[in-house]
Amino acid sequence: MKFPAVAPLDAELQARATARVAALAKPPGALGRVEALAVQLAAVRGSLTPDVGRAVLLIFAGDHGLTEDGVSSYPAAVTGAMVDTMLIGKASANAFAAAVGVEVRVIDAGVARPILGRARHEDGFTDLNVRRGTANAARAPAMTRTEAETALTRGFMTAERTVRQGFGLLALGEMGIGNTAAAALVMHRLTDIPLAHCVGRGAGHDDAGLARKLAVLERAAARTAARDPIDVLSEFGGCEIAMMAGAVIGGAAAHAAVVIDGFISTAAALAAIRLVPEVRPYCFFAHTSEEQGHGRLLAELAAEPLLDLGLRLGEGTGALLAVPILRAAARLLSDVATLDEVLQDIG
Amino acid sequence: MKFPAVAPLDAELQARATARVAALAKPPGALGRVEALAVQLAAVRGSLTPDVGRAVLLIFAGDHGLTEDGVSSYPAAVTGAMVDTMLIGKASANAFAAAVGVEVRVIDAGVARPILGRARHEDGFTDLNVRRGTANAARAPAMTRTEAETALTRGFMTAERTVRQGFGLLALGEMGIGNTAAAALVMHRLTDIPLAHCVGRGAGHDDAGLARKLAVLERAAARTAARDPIDVLSEFGGCEIAMMAGAVIGGAAAHAAVVIDGFISTAAALAAIRLVPEVRPYCFFAHTSEEQGHGRLLAELAAEPLLDLGLRLGEGTGALLAVPILRAAARLLSDVATLDEVLQDIG
Repeated sequence: MKFPAVAPLDAELQARATARVAALAKPPGALGRVEALAVQLAAVRGSLTPDVGRAVLLIFAGDHGLTEDGVSSYPAAVTGAMVDTMLIGKASANAFAAAVGVEVRVIDAGVARPILGRARHEDGFTDLNVRRGTANAARAPAMTRTEAETALTRGFMTAERTVRQGFGLLALGEMGIGNTAAAALVMHRLTDIPLAHCVGRGAGHDDAGLARKLAVLERAAARTAARDPIDVLSEFGGCEIAMMAGAVIGGAAAHAAVVIDGFISTAAALAAIRLVPEVRPYCFFAHTSEEQGHGRLLAELAAEPLLDLGLRLGEGTGALLAVPILRAAARLLSDVATLDEVLQDIG
Repeated sequence: MKFPAVAPLDAELQARATARVAALAKPPGALGRVEALAVQLAAVRGSLTPDVGRAVLLIFAGDHGLTEDGVSSYPAAVTGAMVDTMLIGKASANAFAAAVGVEVRVIDAGVARPILGRARHEDGFTDLNVRRGTANAARAPAMTRTEAETALTRGFMTAERTVRQGFGLLALGEMGIGNTAAAALVMHRLTDIPLAHCVGRGAGHDDAGLARKLAVLERAAARTAARDPIDVLSEFGGCEIAMMAGAVIGGAAAHAAVVIDGFISTAAALAAIRLVPEVRPYCFFAHTSEEQGHGRLLAELAAEPLLDLGLRLGEGTGALLAVPILRAAARLLSDVATLDEVLQDIG
């Protein structure tokens, strides 16, 4: 498959934005990392006074055949139940989104059972289900290569369409029991970092659970030598990870700032960057998760996250908390007077 | 002077909030520090489902006689000019406040020249000027004890009145050329940390400027042995620091969450805590500033700030970026379903 082109950031615009930030009515450098964010946002949005538009959280949900072998401490049916909870506005992501003024949209990328009933609100839900849960990657490919490509394409198109609706900040989150396991496999295979450093406690494994999870993932990793990013996504899953990877590429192609959440979202961003390296500067890494593996994965991507609050929930909760920082950075360029303007006042 | 009582946090309510957070539809502990914030906010607001109300940034401005001896790399007249800039909405604090949906109110606590003219908007400005700039604390007390008490009282009453207007989140910020110097003296005298560890580069001193600043502050410290917090504030200033200390106490007395910004705001919080120790749990420390001394001051208060973005501007910019995190924490308790409710969906 072939992805549309993603434009490299405009170096001349970055230089002008850097000069503008340096001229503002404040001591040079006094806003620390927010100043660099402002410059990055100017380049991403293609404007010296960037308007980030509205912000949206896209939550991609999917189920994982790996749960058959006990990689998660929660039953697989929780995925669908939490999607229902999100659709009635009572998940943590909804609470955080309301607090920061971000719209929530839930996408069924690969949930095992249909999302139906009173919980299904058309406005906040999109059925892009690729398959009803992946196969058990410890024993067989999680999905076919065609399914992985379909997930990527649907993610790409969803992100592009969302940006066209006026959203310039795309926060990406996920829900999927077992998806730290799939993300660990994707990370391992695309970075060559030993699997033991990629696997973590997920939703709450004890030491025995963690050891069992690692043993299952070692079987999955031994089953295939796949290295191509699309092959890796199809071998290990999940549908939501592949669709998020597509959304990263689609958001970047449409000049949105793509806000990456925790371990699973970062694994999706990794796959996206391996497929289309130009998307990297469109990614804003929100936070360092408590999930083992996330710190090393961020280092692999030379990403310095904005927040470190001990989060390990997913759902996009960390990405949501970074959105106000990005909005503030954009406003720095669009709203603040220069020092020269202020000194005229003293004149 | 005598301050009204500040209620200790309700331990039983904290226990109930802790149990409620543990029962929510997410893995236990998965929202890290946000969970502890939710419990703290419940206790501060006196409700298991805390409503933090509207948020406001109070910016206290004042001038410092210490600038006569070159403690700042900026001319003293910049204080008034930046107040004007804030009142026309073009300072960094205004940009950040707009980004996070917080109202900005500027208070003249002790600016040297009257704030007048087209920049003065009644809604966003309050004249509580105690004196037109402090005396040079290297040579004489910055202000009288009566003036320090007046500043504390005005700060206290301003915060209380603001909370009665429906604001449950009070972010505190400041503007005052020379005020890192005054804050360093307050920190030194109230903590016994050596002055050299309390003094930093402020708005941008080079090594020579930093050495000059330290020499001036050593003269100021040698001039008086004052240890009583009100005496320390009157000896070293400034009016804005004393008024912020009063605002911390007033906000806590009125059961608001008081959001502390950077080095100067934290020095004001230190003075408030020394005056009324019960205010400590009402304080939410927003960020670790780049200003040398802030890290040690935070450690002295056993404060773990929420953000670390390399900020050193003041104006309340760091406090503003923490406001969305506090709003999210409050919503966790008021909006999110319990795991039992979600599991019924599966059953």
